[in-house]
Amino acid sequence: MRVLVVHGPNLNMLGTREPDIYGSKTLDQINAMLLEEGARLRAEIKTHQSNSEGELVTAVQQAAGWADVLIINPAGYTHTSVALRDAIAALPVPTIEVHLSNVYAREDFRRHSYISPVARGVISGFGADSYRLALIAAARLVNE
Amino acid sequence: MRVLVVHGPNLNMLGTREPDIYGSKTLDQINAMLLEEGARLRAEIKTHQSNSEGELVTAVQQAAGWADVLIINPAGYTHTSVALRDAIAALPVPTIEVHLSNVYAREDFRRHSYISPVARGVISGFGADSYRLALIAAARLVNE
Amino acid sequence: MRVLVVHGPNLNMLGTREPDIYGSKTLDQINAMLLEEGARLRAEIKTHQSNSEGELVTAVQQAAGWADVLIINPAGYTHTSVALRDAIAALPVPTIEVHLSNVYAREDFRRHSYISPVARGVISGFGADSYRLALIAAARLVNE
Amino acid sequence: MRVLVVHGPNLNMLGTREPDIYGSKTLDQINAMLLEEGARLRAEIKTHQSNSEGELVTAVQQAAGWADVLIINPAGYTHTSVALRDAIAALPVPTIEVHLSNVYAREDFRRHSYISPVARGVISGFGADSYRLALIAAARLVNE
Amino acid sequence: MRVLVVHGPNLNMLGTREPDIYGSKTLDQINAMLLEEGARLRAEIKTHQSNSEGELVTAVQQAAGWADVLIINPAGYTHTSVALRDAIAALPVPTIEVHLSNVYAREDFRRHSYISPVARGVISGFGADSYRLALIAAARLVNE
Amino acid sequence: MRVLVVHGPNLNMLGTREPDIYGSKTLDQINAMLLEEGARLRAEIKTHQSNSEGELVTAVQQAAGWADVLIINPAGYTHTSVALRDAIAALPVPTIEVHLSNVYAREDFRRHSYISPVARGVISGFGADSYRLALIAAARLVNE
Amino acid sequence: MRVLVVHGPNLNMLGTREPDIYGSKTLDQINAMLLEEGARLRAEIKTHQSNSEGELVTAVQQAAGWADVLIINPAGYTHTSVALRDAIAALPVPTIEVHLSNVYAREDFRRHSYISPVARGVISGFGADSYRLALIAAARLVNE
Amino acid sequence: MRVLVVHGPNLNMLGTREPDIYGSKTLDQINAMLLEEGARLRAEIKTHQSNSEGELVTAVQQAAGWADVLIINPAGYTHTSVALRDAIAALPVPTIEVHLSNVYAREDFRRHSYISPVARGVISGFGADSYRLALIAAARLVNE
Amino acid sequence: MRVLVVHGPNLNMLGTREPDIYGSKTLDQINAMLLEEGARLRAEIKTHQSNSEGELVTAVQQAAGWADVLIINPAGYTHTSVALRDAIAALPVPTIEVHLSNVYAREDFRRHSYISPVARGVISGFGADSYRLALIAAARLVNE
Amino acid sequence: MRVLVVHGPNLNMLGTREPDIYGSKTLDQINAMLLEEGARLRAEIKTHQSNSEGELVTAVQQAAGWADVLIINPAGYTHTSVALRDAIAALPVPTIEVHLSNVYAREDFRRHSYISPVARGVISGFGADSYRLALIAAARLVNE
Amino acid sequence: MRVLVVHGPNLNMLGTREPDIYGSKTLDQINAMLLEEGARLRAEIKTHQSNSEGELVTAVQQAAGWADVLIINPAGYTHTSVALRDAIAALPVPTIEVHLSNVYAREDFRRHSYISPVARGVISGFGADSYRLALIAAARLVNE
Amino acid sequence: MRVLVVHGPNLNMLGTREPDIYGSKTLDQINAMLLEEGARLRAEIKTHQSNSEGELVTAVQQAAGWADVLIINPAGYTHTSVALRDAIAALPVPTIEVHLSNVYAREDFRRHSYISPVARGVISGFGADSYRLALIAAARLVNE
Repeated sequence: MRVLVVHGPNLNMLGTREPDIYGSKTLDQINAMLLEEGARLRAEIKTHQSNSEGELVTAVQQAAGWADVLIINPAGYTHTSVALRDAIAALPVPTIEVHLSNVYAREDFRRHSYISPVARGVISGFGADSYRLALIAAARLVNE
Repeated sequence: MRVLVVHGPNLNMLGTREPDIYGSKTLDQINAMLLEEGARLRAEIKTHQSNSEGELVTAVQQAAGWADVLIINPAGYTHTSVALRDAIAALPVPTIEVHLSNVYAREDFRRHSYISPVARGVISGFGADSYRLALIAAARLVNE
Repeated sequence: MRVLVVHGPNLNMLGTREPDIYGSKTLDQINAMLLEEGARLRAEIKTHQSNSEGELVTAVQQAAGWADVLIINPAGYTHTSVALRDAIAALPVPTIEVHLSNVYAREDFRRHSYISPVARGVISGFGADSYRLALIAAARLVNE
Repeated sequence: MRVLVVHGPNLNMLGTREPDIYGSKTLDQINAMLLEEGARLRAEIKTHQSNSEGELVTAVQQAAGWADVLIINPAGYTHTSVALRDAIAALPVPTIEVHLSNVYAREDFRRHSYISPVARGVISGFGADSYRLALIAAARLVNE
Repeated sequence: MRVLVVHGPNLNMLGTREPDIYGSKTLDQINAMLLEEGARLRAEIKTHQSNSEGELVTAVQQAAGWADVLIINPAGYTHTSVALRDAIAALPVPTIEVHLSNVYAREDFRRHSYISPVARGVISGFGADSYRLALIAAARLVNE
Repeated sequence: MRVLVVHGPNLNMLGTREPDIYGSKTLDQINAMLLEEGARLRAEIKTHQSNSEGELVTAVQQAAGWADVLIINPAGYTHTSVALRDAIAALPVPTIEVHLSNVYAREDFRRHSYISPVARGVISGFGADSYRLALIAAARLVNE
Repeated sequence: MRVLVVHGPNLNMLGTREPDIYGSKTLDQINAMLLEEGARLRAEIKTHQSNSEGELVTAVQQAAGWADVLIINPAGYTHTSVALRDAIAALPVPTIEVHLSNVYAREDFRRHSYISPVARGVISGFGADSYRLALIAAARLVNE
Repeated sequence: MRVLVVHGPNLNMLGTREPDIYGSKTLDQINAMLLEEGARLRAEIKTHQSNSEGELVTAVQQAAGWADVLIINPAGYTHTSVALRDAIAALPVPTIEVHLSNVYAREDFRRHSYISPVARGVISGFGADSYRLALIAAARLVNE
Repeated sequence: MRVLVVHGPNLNMLGTREPDIYGSKTLDQINAMLLEEGARLRAEIKTHQSNSEGELVTAVQQAAGWADVLIINPAGYTHTSVALRDAIAALPVPTIEVHLSNVYAREDFRRHSYISPVARGVISGFGADSYRLALIAAARLVNE
Repeated sequence: MRVLVVHGPNLNMLGTREPDIYGSKTLDQINAMLLEEGARLRAEIKTHQSNSEGELVTAVQQAAGWADVLIINPAGYTHTSVALRDAIAALPVPTIEVHLSNVYAREDFRRHSYISPVARGVISGFGADSYRLALIAAARLVNE
Repeated sequence: MRVLVVHGPNLNMLGTREPDIYGSKTLDQINAMLLEEGARLRAEIKTHQSNSEGELVTAVQQAAGWADVLIINPAGYTHTSVALRDAIAALPVPTIEVHLSNVYAREDFRRHSYISPVARGVISGFGADSYRLALIAAARLVNE
Repeated sequence: MRVLVVHGPNLNMLGTREPDIYGSKTLDQINAMLLEEGARLRAEIKTHQSNSEGELVTAVQQAAGWADVLIINPAGYTHTSVALRDAIAALPVPTIEVHLSNVYAREDFRRHSYISPVARGVISGFGADSYRLALIAAARLVNE
């Protein structure tokens, strides 16, 4: 199993900012945890972070030839990016949308996601474990 | 770890109806899977299904003295029940909301949940695995 | 032909309350009329009334193995119950939604029905005759 | 009993177009069925079809001196015509609104009717039988 | 001064229907009153009534070469006709919109007029006198 | 006939400001014209202007014992004052709402009036003539 | 005077949960206070609590033959239950709606009540005293 | 205990206008009743009425140094005054909002109050007794 | 290739009115241009203009047996006609919607089209060239 | 340069109330600071505070003959006063709208200003410095 | 004539993904077709594709000194980019917006375009031919 | 004091485009003015412009270790970027939002800012002086 994990804008700042909302783990720690968990699940993991919507679109496009599953935390673009939605809709493999915080318990505008309707499933609110759960879900999807 | 799993209305019909949306597993099979997974996680699991909003409210209230985590699939009451929300908000242990289907990819009215803002996290779209992931997430929450 | 007729909340009070809106026939009189009309149409009729949303959901579920058509007056739950809608959507036989009063000519919130989109047809505004017309329609549906 | 049956725009095309939505009966067949059913109910039936909103308004106005009941399928004008609503509101006899398809299960804009609040009752979703049921309902209204 | 007075749908029924809302004068009486008042103001008056939106559009178009002012009671088309609005917007002479009843005190949908933004002024709620006041206003507009 | 004419906020500035919208007549000129027209109609006229919502409420209250008709240009309070609406609703004599400009052709928020639903009629868009037409309408109302 | 006091969902948990919102009195203490206050006012008091919407509907229906006034705290069903509203609307005696907390100062969805339009009056925000005030109000209503 | 009772616009007209909505008591009678009830509760009462929003703001501001509780019936300003809300929000003593009629059962715009979110509690629909209940509630608040 | 070109209301006035919005070509000139362009594309062209919604519905219906493509400028009916939409939806050949002006850059109500969702494509804003482009597009569609 | 500074409702209470939102400076201190800053900029400053909407309207009107710039903190009337907007729109000199707090970061209703569309610029969120910045901006506007 | 053709996000994937919506031509084939068509029209064509909103803004800015017309398919940014709209609004040459699919017949959010109000015209729904038609339209615009 | 000034999309085109809205100063001139004003205030100024949302997010993130205040003109991203909002919300130093034009007086969509709720203050409408005022405000914030 090959899984591409895409991290959206501001996630490069994890750990040092607003830890009460986003947790105290850095993105490097999350990526390390994902590689470790991936090893346990015999999955190859690639990770990619960008603040740029266009670069994220390109990353999703390039998942097409390689990944069996896409895990994406679209962060701020969740609520505003049709371009990212279109890229995911065009992807022939399933996509899992994750959020560190429970986005449904925050500002109203965070309750709407352009991504969810084209995702296979959504996991929100478990901090870094949201990614871990997504990886376990991915393994199940691929094994089906 | 003790986990109460509450199943909302119509979930007693799982497996025989609309399997393209809700999967082909029956509720008994899901409960059996949960007990098995619970055993693996050294967790005690109780499950409860009801079609009645009031009975679900009472079930959630009774979780207070026993459970460390509540896992609930509120089904049709997700979108209409303030009473269930109030019961969950009053619960001193964390609640995980699960859905079999990806509710964000269906009718518009299914995109609003009264429950999500008072839940710790939400898992949606992985069929019976949504429950399994919730159980794993519950174990992590309790171990923190 | 076997027809289950389900009456929603407050319909047990028919005849004695607000007769200018709901007519002066009691529910027993309506049920008697339905049995009589059923006999004329060579149809077996069962009727069920409940004030409880959950009990109505269960009644609809149980129609699955027995009825050829479901006739339901969801009354106050018309406008608020996703659970009832989901139960009807899962039913393999056609459902006819009836209302005694013309719900479209009353308060704004009565113009929206969660049930109508999953019903085969809707009959509204003919008093007790709404049920009678539904029974005739049911016979036609079954004969097709 | 004298009943005017008014058919709105595009109903002249019935039978040859989109039979999966509107059924395979032509308007002539429906009118013949209505005359036959009328004979059975000892009712005199007149039918009128027009694509023109103004002509339909005039037809409704002329029902005043002759008909005991108006049965109207306003079709596309259901959702847009205040003029037709005003004509019906001014009519001293009861009006029954009918639709071949279940308009509540289609596009959102079809869920709002300018006509329903001034109708006595509404019958929707039974194909050509919607008219037949309306005729039976009309007979009951006149006999009251 | 030459004034075209255009009466919209259902106004041909004035006097005999809903006199509590629209007054007891017939359209003929209103037209006679307008001619009389016109004579007093040395104005030539032409009147036209139609139930058809298209015919009203044509009538407004033909005002261009003859009338100095258009007085129009668009009735039910007030709230639904962009075609009529476009015809009036294209007219090089001023238009006065009149209503017999006070449309702002009735159903919500009557509070929005497609016509008002392209009219010079609006007079609403004075029964047949709404027309008379419009004629006086027209005379003042032409004399300016 | 006794008529109270109430002018709302900023109307004391008429003539010197934004004459393209509100005309070039001063409020004194309009009041003089009203007295003159009143004399012609054998009507006694009183006028009152205030920028204060509370003072306008009081002025409307005091119309009760004296005036046969109230003519009011509520200006900016048209769109925001429930207090003024309540005062007018309590008045036992008819109220005519006037506007110098055509308020329906300006900003969206000017299309909603709290006053219109409790007025007898509305005249909008004829400049100072709006008042004159209201006075003529008032005479007709009193004579009925 | 006979007063039925109906307590809605989750009120059985009063005193032990979220005392900063709902106060520290248990439901038993509130009921005892109501009986005591009732004795002072020479009123017979019955109380009923249920988490079930249907059971509350039935309780309200049964007030018809016995109570002079209904006092109801619909709790979570305030905002979602048309069935409860219909039951109250059908009750021939006045209903007083009470809330422990000031519902207008909380989440947006709590500002809308299906019950208020069919209640005689509403008392909100005084903790257990909301019930006491309702009882005093009830005594005044009955004495009128 | 010292209580300031503030009466909003049009309440000076109580008793003589629309007694079916607002009751037949004059404001003087209500004030007298309040003084009497105040004496019974050993409370000092001051009352103030104004039609002016600004004067009401000032009256609320001046409550700061004197009153233990503010009782206010904001009448028409309930729905439109942010200034009054800000004055109340700044007051260090609790505020009770009262209405004579049940505002939730009237026009839609009366269902929204700018005042309620900054009030301690709301009492609506009991006529002059709304004030009396507020006084009793005030005594309880001060005694806590 | 046979193409029916249908022109909606007010388009008969082209050239003489509001040329800054709609251009200076008359409808006759546009039709001549279309015939010429049709000749170039070896296409047979018929054109039809009407101010009447019903007549346009009929024209569209009659395209069924003759035309390979329908080109329609629905003008004012674009935004208000469900009847026209239904006629087009029933047509077995593709429809191209054209507008002379860029309707998306004008009033808000012109941004919504009932026609677009049932059209094959839309061309807006190129004056008389909108028709020419549509004809070229039609030729391509037929050749596919 | 002559600048009129107008302070809206409740600003007379500055310094003693809610200093966490509005700062600890009194209005006298702000006015003194403005005079001092004015002296530095060689500007003549007049200040005016009122709780009354009407008095503020009048104050703005009187700025016309004297001031080169109007600085206004409309406070609670920002969100509700069309009358104040109209007064400012009629002013031939530029207006600067200021707010002590950042109104865009507070309740939703504070995000809409009737004043901003007719102001030259807006300064919000800098406490008493919002006025100082406005004075500097005013000097720049006059010097242009 | 010099024409810049700008392709938005995901259009680099044309041909291999979702050909039922977007057609089977690759972007290279479309560009080749445009060059060929350009040669026929004696137009110089440059094309540019990017997934990045910022890069598209820059591309549009750079059109200023070179192109006579801009043809842009903003794809996913159509519905979300004010930045792109501002860049186009600042461009001194006309812009033509194109879409491969008929965006008005898809999800609701695709019916709103930030670009259309600042474009000269819009062509939507003709697959790769949308570009070709735009090029023909461009040639006409330049020749005018 | 160190201040980072971030300029959003299209601001690199200042001076040459739409000078009636955005002024005639180029961005270089504004930056020079800022450096000069910074020198006067003994502040170190860095400026950064980008058309790319992602690059702006990164620029804001990098302000964290260096700047005491962030001044940002988000231009088109003001209304659409949650990513930029999140970056600013995570910044430990205050942010000042500036706009050259008065955004509240333009299109409706420009009245909503994702940035304002996380900014310390907002300055809008003073052309290049908006930046200068922000710099003065920044100096005051740092000195507090």
